[in-house]
Amino acid sequence: MKIDVLTLFPEMFPGVLESSIIGKSQEKGLVSFRVVNFRDYAVNKHGQVDDYPYGGGAGMILRPEPLFEAVESLLDGSNPEEQKPRIILLCPQGERYSQKKAEELAKQEHLILLCGHYEGYDERIRQHLVTDEISIGDFVLTGGELPAMTLIDSVVRLLPGALGNETSAMTDSFSTGLLEHPHYTRPAEYRGWKVPDVLLSGHHGKIEEWRKMESLRRTLTRRPELLNQFKDNPQIIKLLEKIKIGQDLS
Amino acid sequence: MKIDVLTLFPEMFPGVLESSIIGKSQEKGLVSFRVVNFRDYAVNKHGQVDDYPYGGGAGMILRPEPLFEAVESLLDGSNPEEQKPRIILLCPQGERYSQKKAEELAKQEHLILLCGHYEGYDERIRQHLVTDEISIGDFVLTGGELPAMTLIDSVVRLLPGALGNETSAMTDSFSTGLLEHPHYTRPAEYRGWKVPDVLLSGHHGKIEEWRKMESLRRTLTRRPELLNQFKDNPQIIKLLEKIKIGQDLS
Repeated sequence: MKIDVLTLFPEMFPGVLESSIIGKSQEKGLVSFRVVNFRDYAVNKHGQVDDYPYGGGAGMILRPEPLFEAVESLLDGSNPEEQKPRIILLCPQGERYSQKKAEELAKQEHLILLCGHYEGYDERIRQHLVTDEISIGDFVLTGGELPAMTLIDSVVRLLPGALGNETSAMTDSFSTGLLEHPHYTRPAEYRGWKVPDVLLSGHHGKIEEWRKMESLRRTLTRRPELLNQFKDNPQIIKLLEKIKIGQDLS
Repeated sequence: MKIDVLTLFPEMFPGVLESSIIGKSQEKGLVSFRVVNFRDYAVNKHGQVDDYPYGGGAGMILRPEPLFEAVESLLDGSNPEEQKPRIILLCPQGERYSQKKAEELAKQEHLILLCGHYEGYDERIRQHLVTDEISIGDFVLTGGELPAMTLIDSVVRLLPGALGNETSAMTDSFSTGLLEHPHYTRPAEYRGWKVPDVLLSGHHGKIEEWRKMESLRRTLTRRPELLNQFKDNPQIIKLLEKIKIGQDLS
């Protein structure tokens, strides 16, 4: 997979792209990155990439020319067999990012991520250049750089071979549709706080049952809306009823 | 404000913490960071911080000792007047991060952010060490580092004096409860695509009206659930009706 990033702050990226799973995936040849400063495509020799908003108002708006030209420079067109890239604008007005979207993007050959800064993008970038608009959440950030890195991390770890332990990706929260059950490790007692007996019992069936119940309990308490997808699952509904009336604790 | 980060990947942070608004806020003395590798508080001389899960299963779990001891090392207790720090676990099971939470955290004096990696945290960290659990969204990431940086960016830009232009923070998406209207800047025509006439009209009232309508239209199309908060606002409801029947386009 090729991932290109257009940003005015390329120095934000190496520390993240070279670390942990993303760094290892580059070493394994699973993904390659190009981080391009689109100021190289500025509209004049002063490096201008933004301008005042038409109609007035505070803040500066990214002009269309630098982003159109920077994207076009990344499309060499030498291989007509190649899949068209997904050109993704990171912006608060975009589709809410989700694990499902990460899975869809992980199947692509080429992603181009546009990281805005300042007040916003000229609307023509949105209308005529990008294929996807993505937001990672309802909070205000300085630019699209951290959302781009977040997207990259979530996508790269789905590439076949990226994770040492293939089962890990599947049992993570959201991959099952439920929040994860609590985990415990050594020491068995720390500052007086003990690991639940069942986990030390060696009884595989009881441990599985405890984990399922705790996963459901946590989801019910913290994110009940995630349970809607199980409304036609009689087994899950029965377990949830037990939790609600406290019967599971007996 | 003091922000401390506990991580096994400290090298991911400098590129982000030294750039843009966060970097400038440090230079202005508005915020100071300490990025601590909690492997310095490993349970043995091999640098061990994790262990197998009790009850079996894939992946490694972070042991409690390194995180408890690293957090305690950051609490010098020399100033009894000082507000207690918020100790924040970045994890997929946490409360969904929002602009409201960013505003709440921006009022604190001291934040300590715990970035997990691997399969998960020992539950006793969650129960007895942290004050907040935060998730930035329903997607699987390699660790808490990118969520921590995201939280830092959103909080630091709210500190008084962090932004050059104070009005920008207020008109961003989510600060008004609506998605932002489209922005346009120079050139007035690019590759045949023109800026809407109203924005070039110089008629301030019409421009404001257009922006309000476009902001409502975009929110209605993309994130209709955000409009629930306006259900008792007759002015907004009337505008939304106009949009729905296409009357605003006449």
